Amino acid sequence: MSSSYSNYTNSPCAACKFLRRKCTSDCVFAPYFPPEEPKKFANVHRIFGASNVSKILQEVEPHQREDAVNSLAYEAEARLRDPVYGCVGAISVLQRQVLGLQRELEETNADIMRYASCLGGETTSVYGARRG
Amino acid sequence: MSSSYSNYTNSPCAACKFLRRKCTSDCVFAPYFPPEEPKKFANVHRIFGASNVSKILQEVEPHQREDAVNSLAYEAEARLRDPVYGCVGAISVLQRQVLGLQRELEETNADIMRYASCLGGETTSVYGARRG
Repeated sequence: MSSSYSNYTNSPCAACKFLRRKCTSDCVFAPYFPPEEPKKFANVHRIFGASNVSKILQEVEPHQREDAVNSLAYEAEARLRDPVYGCVGAISVLQRQVLGLQRELEETNADIMRYASCLGGETTSVYGARRG
Repeated sequence: MSSSYSNYTNSPCAACKFLRRKCTSDCVFAPYFPPEEPKKFANVHRIFGASNVSKILQEVEPHQREDAVNSLAYEAEARLRDPVYGCVGAISVLQRQVLGLQRELEETNADIMRYASCLGGETTSVYGARRG
């Protein structure tokens, strides 16, 4: 693993390779766009542009930059897969799923109440068993 | 309403106003970036860049362009509010909510089964009432 990694240390990062520029030791992209993941940079470049990605990286704290890059890469990939909705499509699907599950849970809880009223005294113990 | 709208027809769209260029009748932005919503264009411009937004608009069918612009505006706003996670943060929250609801539903269904085994014969009718 370490020998494989050392091969990369002399390579320009994926961003500098893509932009055909020299990758310096203070390159803002290098820690987050390793040369072995060329698609990651190509995607964010195509959707956000290198300059916007660099601006976002400068805006956030160094310890949050990896998360920022990964979320940008996720958004870019989603937008390339679905140019109309991008990852907002996933949000809509999840929101519908949450509403469906909430409705189903309400109905199931109403069933529980119906059972409980049939069982009378036993209600508390069975219901309490799960909550406790 | 119509007189208010006609006031805008002579104004450049929000994109052309922002980019300080002449808004022509074939402007790709004009139908989706009305002058009364300047922030909508400013946001997508800041996150994606005008040229990338224009490219995405050209890529999708005309009837899908409004949805595309609105989803880009949603993503841009989310990224400006949360530069680290953008709308991927909303996806994580929703995914956790779905998992939590699924778990709760499973537990509630297990409760139902416990009640059902206590009630014996009455089970089918109470359970059947909701499904039917």
